[in-house]
Amino acid sequence: MNSFGRIFKVAIFGESHGESVGVNIDGCPAGLPLTVEDFLVDIERRKGGTQKGTTPRKEDDLPIFKSGLFNNKTTGAPITIIFENKNTRSGDYEKLRDFPRPSHADFVAHDKFGGYEDYRGGGHFSGRLTVCLVAVGVIAKKLLQYQNIAVAANILEIGGEKDLEKGLQKAIDAKDSIGGIVECRANVPKGLGEPFFDSAESLISHAVFAIPAVRGIEFGTGFAAARMFGLEHNDAIIDTNGTTRTNHAGGIVGGISNGNELVFRIAIKPTASTPKEQETLNWNTGEVDTFSVKGRHDLCIALRVPVVLEAVTAMVLTDLMLLEQRIKRVV
Amino acid sequence: MNSFGRIFKVAIFGESHGESVGVNIDGCPAGLPLTVEDFLVDIERRKGGTQKGTTPRKEDDLPIFKSGLFNNKTTGAPITIIFENKNTRSGDYEKLRDFPRPSHADFVAHDKFGGYEDYRGGGHFSGRLTVCLVAVGVIAKKLLQYQNIAVAANILEIGGEKDLEKGLQKAIDAKDSIGGIVECRANVPKGLGEPFFDSAESLISHAVFAIPAVRGIEFGTGFAAARMFGLEHNDAIIDTNGTTRTNHAGGIVGGISNGNELVFRIAIKPTASTPKEQETLNWNTGEVDTFSVKGRHDLCIALRVPVVLEAVTAMVLTDLMLLEQRIKRVV
Amino acid sequence: MNSFGRIFKVAIFGESHGESVGVNIDGCPAGLPLTVEDFLVDIERRKGGTQKGTTPRKEDDLPIFKSGLFNNKTTGAPITIIFENKNTRSGDYEKLRDFPRPSHADFVAHDKFGGYEDYRGGGHFSGRLTVCLVAVGVIAKKLLQYQNIAVAANILEIGGEKDLEKGLQKAIDAKDSIGGIVECRANVPKGLGEPFFDSAESLISHAVFAIPAVRGIEFGTGFAAARMFGLEHNDAIIDTNGTTRTNHAGGIVGGISNGNELVFRIAIKPTASTPKEQETLNWNTGEVDTFSVKGRHDLCIALRVPVVLEAVTAMVLTDLMLLEQRIKRVV
Amino acid sequence: MNSFGRIFKVAIFGESHGESVGVNIDGCPAGLPLTVEDFLVDIERRKGGTQKGTTPRKEDDLPIFKSGLFNNKTTGAPITIIFENKNTRSGDYEKLRDFPRPSHADFVAHDKFGGYEDYRGGGHFSGRLTVCLVAVGVIAKKLLQYQNIAVAANILEIGGEKDLEKGLQKAIDAKDSIGGIVECRANVPKGLGEPFFDSAESLISHAVFAIPAVRGIEFGTGFAAARMFGLEHNDAIIDTNGTTRTNHAGGIVGGISNGNELVFRIAIKPTASTPKEQETLNWNTGEVDTFSVKGRHDLCIALRVPVVLEAVTAMVLTDLMLLEQRIKRVV
Repeated sequence: MNSFGRIFKVAIFGESHGESVGVNIDGCPAGLPLTVEDFLVDIERRKGGTQKGTTPRKEDDLPIFKSGLFNNKTTGAPITIIFENKNTRSGDYEKLRDFPRPSHADFVAHDKFGGYEDYRGGGHFSGRLTVCLVAVGVIAKKLLQYQNIAVAANILEIGGEKDLEKGLQKAIDAKDSIGGIVECRANVPKGLGEPFFDSAESLISHAVFAIPAVRGIEFGTGFAAARMFGLEHNDAIIDTNGTTRTNHAGGIVGGISNGNELVFRIAIKPTASTPKEQETLNWNTGEVDTFSVKGRHDLCIALRVPVVLEAVTAMVLTDLMLLEQRIKRVV
Repeated sequence: MNSFGRIFKVAIFGESHGESVGVNIDGCPAGLPLTVEDFLVDIERRKGGTQKGTTPRKEDDLPIFKSGLFNNKTTGAPITIIFENKNTRSGDYEKLRDFPRPSHADFVAHDKFGGYEDYRGGGHFSGRLTVCLVAVGVIAKKLLQYQNIAVAANILEIGGEKDLEKGLQKAIDAKDSIGGIVECRANVPKGLGEPFFDSAESLISHAVFAIPAVRGIEFGTGFAAARMFGLEHNDAIIDTNGTTRTNHAGGIVGGISNGNELVFRIAIKPTASTPKEQETLNWNTGEVDTFSVKGRHDLCIALRVPVVLEAVTAMVLTDLMLLEQRIKRVV
Repeated sequence: MNSFGRIFKVAIFGESHGESVGVNIDGCPAGLPLTVEDFLVDIERRKGGTQKGTTPRKEDDLPIFKSGLFNNKTTGAPITIIFENKNTRSGDYEKLRDFPRPSHADFVAHDKFGGYEDYRGGGHFSGRLTVCLVAVGVIAKKLLQYQNIAVAANILEIGGEKDLEKGLQKAIDAKDSIGGIVECRANVPKGLGEPFFDSAESLISHAVFAIPAVRGIEFGTGFAAARMFGLEHNDAIIDTNGTTRTNHAGGIVGGISNGNELVFRIAIKPTASTPKEQETLNWNTGEVDTFSVKGRHDLCIALRVPVVLEAVTAMVLTDLMLLEQRIKRVV
Repeated sequence: MNSFGRIFKVAIFGESHGESVGVNIDGCPAGLPLTVEDFLVDIERRKGGTQKGTTPRKEDDLPIFKSGLFNNKTTGAPITIIFENKNTRSGDYEKLRDFPRPSHADFVAHDKFGGYEDYRGGGHFSGRLTVCLVAVGVIAKKLLQYQNIAVAANILEIGGEKDLEKGLQKAIDAKDSIGGIVECRANVPKGLGEPFFDSAESLISHAVFAIPAVRGIEFGTGFAAARMFGLEHNDAIIDTNGTTRTNHAGGIVGGISNGNELVFRIAIKPTASTPKEQETLNWNTGEVDTFSVKGRHDLCIALRVPVVLEAVTAMVLTDLMLLEQRIKRVV
């Protein structure tokens, strides 16, 4: 399923080199003001800005509202937003059809969908669809803002370097792509999530692994907790609001937010489309062959992830806030 | 929701010191032979065996089949299995009611459920409910066995030590609890999972964070991928079956299993119930106070996790295999 | 799936002649007082009382709470209730195994579940499971009571007779079973339900057809509306509360409750287990043969339906009230 | 939720006088050939043809594929189809804003969505959205065709008359709208549906009540069964395929299709927008007032229902066929 959520239900669709990509949001409260302007900053952030290492692909990427808005406000009916695909140069990608690109979905998509998949530029598997997630995030973050909840994601390191310029330079020097780590924080009220299957961590990680290139997630102290003693890791509760002295838990205990800051990190693999020559299967010969990815690509896809991570996190929190009746059905 | 799955739908229930805990499984194929004996090994494994650091709590923990079986085979109707709670000493826990235990769900449960929660021994939040997950795992692994799929989880390290005895001894010496890392591997056929929201990683991590004490998950190379170059991380496809030379992806690309081994690791925090004296809020006084957790507890809860991790993984794979029509509705 | 509901999620399980039948309710608000006594009246009503035409099968049918209650109140965790099967005489049913009983599920169950179904007394398909629905209804009606919503179902006619005694006598005279019509009414607040797929009628009818023997449902004027003119059928709105002069709509317009009384009727077929000798396939010979149903049965199953109809209606309304945030997560 | 289905998941969106209406289908098997031509007949049928009593509103209503197709075949990725709204004359409807139209959703929509609803022409509640259902039906019927399953709906009576011309003439003479009855039949394989909550009747009726103006549904003998004796109503099984001598059950027993013909009927109310002058609340004055509906409307909306009924029925059957693994994930 390409959908997520119980109350705030999000479905994404589209292909990289088809006519468009888009999103359908069902269950958004009525009365939320929404205009194209609300989307511009985050859509620009997703492009990775003017930083080194991001792709020069330029698209207007303006959201086109197809349903669910009236007089610039949400109506309570399903919202459909479409982003047209312009400036696509399929030619570049057609050449690759001989090769299932390593660490891309080409091979599995072909196998799973019997060869009927739209393979151009990764088709439905393309990172292009993250613009739909960003659009969801704009709406979700605006809903959360009314509750004074802010979600913010930042890059912690690139290629192991906390100095991001330095990390990028490593990739540029190596003429190769490189990975990174992104952290997300949000001030979340107590009581979101449930024990076991719908724990806040379960829902957040479910949504986070919808972002292409994510290889891991850790909450609070995360993997470091595996090397700690109990007394060291336990967060002493210090007042009747549930404030804790430390926040090794990252704001979630027993699957439920405890009112302290939500903190988690994700690992982003190096962009699969490295400029380097690679080996992989040649579908025509059935033999291993060398090839090079053509076209426009990012050296470090992690640079574009923060706004997407904010988006899926805000999406989950919005759904949980609606479930807990902390966001009203009519704003 | 305390349920998971689209076809193979699992719901768990019960409280640590209530009458029982149990599980309802809807959508299990008909015709699977199932007896109490099938459960014994995994139930024993969950107890952590006779290893140092595991709790001495002894329970028969035999599954009681309430529905869905006939002539020792599944019928296709919902399966309900109950485990009675015996040998519970609520007295130990009643004393703790004055203190919301750090890193336990006491505080959030009280807040979320308005004080109506069954707080004895953690109630519905207790690790006791993992016996229900283990029961699901027994059934799921048996279904997968028919497809020659095996799921196996093992402890990789305790307290940062690959020599597990050494790790445990650290905890014993420190008179404190300690964390660990558990790895899961499975030979999974190609084609399970979907792009974006129902990626195999999304579903697995969703299920995995239902296990108490999990603080992180990483697939394949995981967090280390964030420090790698593309050429290093990409897995070259070397034959028409999709076999890859390396397996940094951990068997999943584009959200879909690629036929290589599924590999992922989880971080387990130190047992929240450390033997050490701790500080936390005293609910009676509203002030921070010191207290000690009484009762039976594990120094390293990670020791009990592998069988639970196998269980939730097998649960997810079974659901995906049914969705992909690789497991028949009648065995 | 044997489950229903988005917030107030209900799953039933069990077999007529297995050990027990039961229900799991996930999402019930915390703090609702609940004792065995709350169930007695409705469980008795389900037995059809001492009226002519109901089966003499006597069971204590007391609900056994397995989870989700603490100090006689709901905790917010999943509630599991079990009803033990006593006094079952499988012998009667074993004889029937040669014949798939007409209008029973014997044939389809055998076909669908590959012969692994528990066929004794209809197994999982048995009307016995309606006691689980009744239990759900007790809880749902109690929740609705706090909102001053009452749900009441009554028999309108038996065998075409509004004088119910007369209708039953027809069946007794004919030594055959007979059908009936049951009506349900509830004072429902405005705003429940959604356009199209989750219309209030969609959800109610979905739940209603979970009741065995239901052959049709109609809202408000129902089938008679097909013969009316628009002016006759339209309900004039006469005040700012949305009160309508007539109620041909049965309280639902555009899929959404309009604040007028919810009114709908269902058709119940004659009990499939008629005392009459019948023809049907003999599984042993592969030929049509005559046989008679043995055992205890109702002449008019409609007599037992009102309390079950109230139950599923209350279940739907509770879910919708929670979705619309009109019932709090903690009572 | 504006969505339906577990495997073949359908979500509709749009407003009568917004930019467009559309549908998103997730889970459609890959490899199904699909072109605009496939849709033309059913889209034309939905317009009610050139029969008396249907609205003269002319729209091209050509489906615009936004995603999920490649080389004129489905790809397995979500399919999005949009129908642009042309030729809308909002002016007609603006005038009605003073009056919540009787038997329309105007009042409930205003109340539920806090006045933010798009009220023009009924907005999201408009029958206009049934063109989306028709589009789903085209795809579902094509998938079913590969399994030799045909779904066909026909009008049985209009205004109580089996001679449809005569029924329509009654409405024309009365200068009023009128209701009707539509029947649906399909040859369905054994084994679709499940006992209780996901009975075939539950799922079909759920989907059917998504069609505006439906007031009732009955399967097989339906409401007449309530007046029958058991021996009369029971369908004798006459061969090992489960063929029954009669088909009072309408092809479903115990919630599961039995291999005999699926037969059910629905009641359609008279078009709410009658040409007659009506009374209703005047929102400006708070008093009851008279008004007349302007604009283009059908005297008998039932005339347009058959193709929509086929569509939702085929949608349900497709989902069930996929669930039962009778339709492959790749065609």
